Amino acid sequence: MKAAVKVRPEPGGTELLEVDTPIPGPNDALIRMDATSICGTDMHIYNWDLWARQHIKTPRIYGHEFSGTIVEAGKNVDYLQEGDSVSGECHVYCGHCHQCKMGNAHICENMTAFGVDTDGIFCEYQALPAQNLWVNDPKIPVEYLSLQDPLGNAVNTVFSAGDITGKNVVVLGCGPIGLLSITVAKAAGAAQVIAVGHSNKYRMDLARKVGADIVFGKEDDVIKEVKSLTDGIGADAVFEITGNPNAVIEGIHMARAGGTLALLGIFNEPVTLNLTDDIVFKCMDIKGIYGRKIWDTWITTNGLLKSKKLNLDPIITHKYKFNDILKGMETMASGNSGKIVLTF
Amino acid sequence: MKAAVKVRPEPGGTELLEVDTPIPGPNDALIRMDATSICGTDMHIYNWDLWARQHIKTPRIYGHEFSGTIVEAGKNVDYLQEGDSVSGECHVYCGHCHQCKMGNAHICENMTAFGVDTDGIFCEYQALPAQNLWVNDPKIPVEYLSLQDPLGNAVNTVFSAGDITGKNVVVLGCGPIGLLSITVAKAAGAAQVIAVGHSNKYRMDLARKVGADIVFGKEDDVIKEVKSLTDGIGADAVFEITGNPNAVIEGIHMARAGGTLALLGIFNEPVTLNLTDDIVFKCMDIKGIYGRKIWDTWITTNGLLKSKKLNLDPIITHKYKFNDILKGMETMASGNSGKIVLTF
Amino acid sequence: MKAAVKVRPEPGGTELLEVDTPIPGPNDALIRMDATSICGTDMHIYNWDLWARQHIKTPRIYGHEFSGTIVEAGKNVDYLQEGDSVSGECHVYCGHCHQCKMGNAHICENMTAFGVDTDGIFCEYQALPAQNLWVNDPKIPVEYLSLQDPLGNAVNTVFSAGDITGKNVVVLGCGPIGLLSITVAKAAGAAQVIAVGHSNKYRMDLARKVGADIVFGKEDDVIKEVKSLTDGIGADAVFEITGNPNAVIEGIHMARAGGTLALLGIFNEPVTLNLTDDIVFKCMDIKGIYGRKIWDTWITTNGLLKSKKLNLDPIITHKYKFNDILKGMETMASGNSGKIVLTF
Amino acid sequence: MKAAVKVRPEPGGTELLEVDTPIPGPNDALIRMDATSICGTDMHIYNWDLWARQHIKTPRIYGHEFSGTIVEAGKNVDYLQEGDSVSGECHVYCGHCHQCKMGNAHICENMTAFGVDTDGIFCEYQALPAQNLWVNDPKIPVEYLSLQDPLGNAVNTVFSAGDITGKNVVVLGCGPIGLLSITVAKAAGAAQVIAVGHSNKYRMDLARKVGADIVFGKEDDVIKEVKSLTDGIGADAVFEITGNPNAVIEGIHMARAGGTLALLGIFNEPVTLNLTDDIVFKCMDIKGIYGRKIWDTWITTNGLLKSKKLNLDPIITHKYKFNDILKGMETMASGNSGKIVLTF
Repeated sequence: MKAAVKVRPEPGGTELLEVDTPIPGPNDALIRMDATSICGTDMHIYNWDLWARQHIKTPRIYGHEFSGTIVEAGKNVDYLQEGDSVSGECHVYCGHCHQCKMGNAHICENMTAFGVDTDGIFCEYQALPAQNLWVNDPKIPVEYLSLQDPLGNAVNTVFSAGDITGKNVVVLGCGPIGLLSITVAKAAGAAQVIAVGHSNKYRMDLARKVGADIVFGKEDDVIKEVKSLTDGIGADAVFEITGNPNAVIEGIHMARAGGTLALLGIFNEPVTLNLTDDIVFKCMDIKGIYGRKIWDTWITTNGLLKSKKLNLDPIITHKYKFNDILKGMETMASGNSGKIVLTF
Repeated sequence: MKAAVKVRPEPGGTELLEVDTPIPGPNDALIRMDATSICGTDMHIYNWDLWARQHIKTPRIYGHEFSGTIVEAGKNVDYLQEGDSVSGECHVYCGHCHQCKMGNAHICENMTAFGVDTDGIFCEYQALPAQNLWVNDPKIPVEYLSLQDPLGNAVNTVFSAGDITGKNVVVLGCGPIGLLSITVAKAAGAAQVIAVGHSNKYRMDLARKVGADIVFGKEDDVIKEVKSLTDGIGADAVFEITGNPNAVIEGIHMARAGGTLALLGIFNEPVTLNLTDDIVFKCMDIKGIYGRKIWDTWITTNGLLKSKKLNLDPIITHKYKFNDILKGMETMASGNSGKIVLTF
Repeated sequence: MKAAVKVRPEPGGTELLEVDTPIPGPNDALIRMDATSICGTDMHIYNWDLWARQHIKTPRIYGHEFSGTIVEAGKNVDYLQEGDSVSGECHVYCGHCHQCKMGNAHICENMTAFGVDTDGIFCEYQALPAQNLWVNDPKIPVEYLSLQDPLGNAVNTVFSAGDITGKNVVVLGCGPIGLLSITVAKAAGAAQVIAVGHSNKYRMDLARKVGADIVFGKEDDVIKEVKSLTDGIGADAVFEITGNPNAVIEGIHMARAGGTLALLGIFNEPVTLNLTDDIVFKCMDIKGIYGRKIWDTWITTNGLLKSKKLNLDPIITHKYKFNDILKGMETMASGNSGKIVLTF
Repeated sequence: MKAAVKVRPEPGGTELLEVDTPIPGPNDALIRMDATSICGTDMHIYNWDLWARQHIKTPRIYGHEFSGTIVEAGKNVDYLQEGDSVSGECHVYCGHCHQCKMGNAHICENMTAFGVDTDGIFCEYQALPAQNLWVNDPKIPVEYLSLQDPLGNAVNTVFSAGDITGKNVVVLGCGPIGLLSITVAKAAGAAQVIAVGHSNKYRMDLARKVGADIVFGKEDDVIKEVKSLTDGIGADAVFEITGNPNAVIEGIHMARAGGTLALLGIFNEPVTLNLTDDIVFKCMDIKGIYGRKIWDTWITTNGLLKSKKLNLDPIITHKYKFNDILKGMETMASGNSGKIVLTF
């Protein structure tokens, strides 16, 4: 089978090779890929940045966002059938540690991730643990189904603030997860979804197409604008998806007292906060977000797909054939894209 | 001023009279009505049924759903100004009983309701307690603003099941509150909104126009259909807005194990339940719903109005001038209406 | 090994036999029993009532409440070791159905229960699915550890009403689960724990020893008393653990408006309710309770055991050697017992 | 009447003077003080630190923690009677701003505080807004009743982490609020309450007397110890009540992934955090806490007082007559005290 393999520990370093088709273990299922999308994590691996150097051993097939079709279920797996459409949660959890027993499998103490610690799905077939598979509704297009992992990040972030129906929310960042968060918040009936980009006009324009009620950029006094749009009160919830330290502080200042700031962005440096005024006296709730709740987030994500309220088409800016994956990587690296989906 | 007064303790018994304009007390505001809508409670009073005979003393100005404009604020009321657009919560709460202190002012131990226990707003001006007023966003049409009371019933019912974004829900009943519940659930991003009417084709057709994904009637095997639409699992939440004993039992059978049945409908007879199979073993959550949470429900309702996701136009089937209020009553009594709004 | 086997489909019908020691499968663990306690379910089987006749196939080893020590872990079970003290959740869940994926493994769509559908633990050794085992803190006495299943029922019931710290609660029923609920509510800092027995003086006396603030019996006007003890407001939560239809209605009348009635008791007949006054207008929340949340309830139960705030000693009224299990059954049948623990 | 008045804008600057007894307005009640306790805020005023210089205008009667008896209810106040025992919420809320309407009166946009912005209760009589009064259970000693304000701070902090029954919690700081938090967490059935002092042996000893399961000091490797006491997992919730920047970071490191850090302490300097590892990837929930929820916190606090599970006697280390208030201030300033209660 064909696979995109990180063969050399260097920027790029990826080749489309012919490799052996995996053989599923007794608790696995062998999946033929139908569609895959490129994640920011894949870009870290492609670009071979510090994180990738610390976490990835070459050779490694990467990629973890997909929808596919089961071609063979392992012998202990009687609840999945050949022909089932499935997607997968990339965080492989143990099921028996304290966090798993608490319902926090997404922060399992014994976690591994396929596409990072083990081979991923930038390839025609992959054998994955059956417990990590989600059976799809085959009526939903495979392009959408392949987005459930990043869409789940957005769902997990947006609903970390509780029920946001009728609430004023701000999305900081108009990258792929920011765009997905905008459509999730709109679909859930937020009173207003205010998006904040910085200077990438392409993505800010996408934010408008996706449905943000208003989009601000670096030239705007966003704190003042948000206050003005909320009768001076501030936003109920702010979703930080940039990793910019200033965005954290500004995000708090945009929020109302007693509001929520959810942090999904990754920061390359420490952030200095005025805890007294900005968190204690303001009764702020600051929440770190990671991955997707297993399977809570997937259930909500699928319900939203079923509702047909998500506006995903403007977010999928590029569709390529899997053979053109390197072109996809370069497009993603340009910053002028939303999600890039590869079909097989 | 003109007022619709229940003058005689009998069916109908309502006259449009010239009466004195009320004088606001120090904690009141005097409001000039802009729009009012007719509630089921008003129909009880009009029809002079058992409930009305037990609760209403004539002469009484009735009506409690409205939007209006402040013409004079009482002397202790410095936070409302002449010209403010307001609507009002009809349940006048004491603010100091245990339920009020718990945040349950809607079930205040010392409650009175205007339009029932005291004079209501089927009239040109009314003086109401300032604490019970909600300042409206003047950009929203007065017809919509006058619906906040029944819309709030729907919001309170729908969100009693928690966050229903991405969930499968059933609305039992296609009367005005049922129709409002359908649009609320759609606006909040429910996976599917399944409506169940009985035999009133007019209202079932309205349910479709409002946005129900599917509408069932008395000829359908609704339990089977709901199971089929939910992969055999059952609905996450069922909203009972008919007062029909059978609907309660069928509602439980449509719900999934661990689901919610919210009861807003009023039953004229006792209901016999198989608690063991239908509630205990099924881990059902049965919730009684009354009025609106003060002010939680109003905040969510306003956020939904702001989101522009509510489809209210098909629900407002008739608009009359206030002078034609008796025509409105008769139209409502026919069953062939949604909400009826009267403007001044 | 020795096992208590229901050998004949008739009342009693239980013999202590020598049978083969089970052989654990690859996902099981073989456990040597240290202590077991007798459940109401075991009494149904012993007495061979309607439920037992419908659900039990003889011969069957019954019993499901235990603590034991692992003597052999199946070959796929690397996270349990010989010598680990364990107890077990008797509801064997599939892990992949919708309810399991929602976190509702206790109402798994493919559930079986050991001690009912498969052989249980009234025997010296049993092989059980490793996924259903809970690793115990060996510092806690085995008698207490064997009670985690019924204690978990009590925990699940009591906390179904949310955080009951500082709340007024009523426990209807002074049988073993009622007694356990009393000590759980006291340990959680309930403002008052009011217990209601009927006419079993032995158990009402146990309720006092366990720590109920006050215990009422059939001669008391309990609704009036509860109102009086709560400044006329009613109890925040009522836990129904009798299965008596009248207790449901009285339980609602003891509760405050907006309160919770949790139903764990099993009713042999339908119950007729005034939904309008008692649920709708009263904003009651009626919750069916089954089993234990897996593993949420176990985590809280263990935390309570660790807190040393539970008063379990008065509840364990009888300790026998396993060989005397039939004596235990007879004692339990007399009604003059709390929990009966058998040690090996 | 006698009153402790901050007469001069300087450290100390407090005199016990004879002043006019206040006259209650129509919405007030005049209260004769029975007991008052000294708050950290009072020490700021006494010591005349930066905060006091910015917020206090002399002359000012300070003090806000009290229990008293109503001697006269204002003419609009029909629900309070002469002779009622009351305590008071010092944050005077407007009742009509957005935060008040959300149920967040403790962060009212138009807040004033008696004892800070207006005259407080270090005096024999005070007229306070009736809406801010809580009617006490006269069976509870006045010394305990006067502590409801700081006890409420502890309740609000501890329960910000959700229901902590059966959970492992850490209290950072053994000052008065830390001590109150320890007894609140114990009363609510926490699995373990781990207290962390620094070097004040007097207060660490109080922490033990109050009921902390273990108390650590500056010589201990607290992060390691907490991990060890929680099977390597970390604490479910950490309550920061010191205002020490290091405590925030250590608090996060003591917590488990997905845990809560509640911040009540006030920081005199900015705090630098590694958001990526310590909040985002760890899924931490950081919550700022201010005052008491009105009236949720008071209800829980009263329920706990009623439960008799709070161990307040060791926390009230000193009782003086009101005339000795300056001695109380000096004792508090020494650091060798818990709460100091003054009676009249």
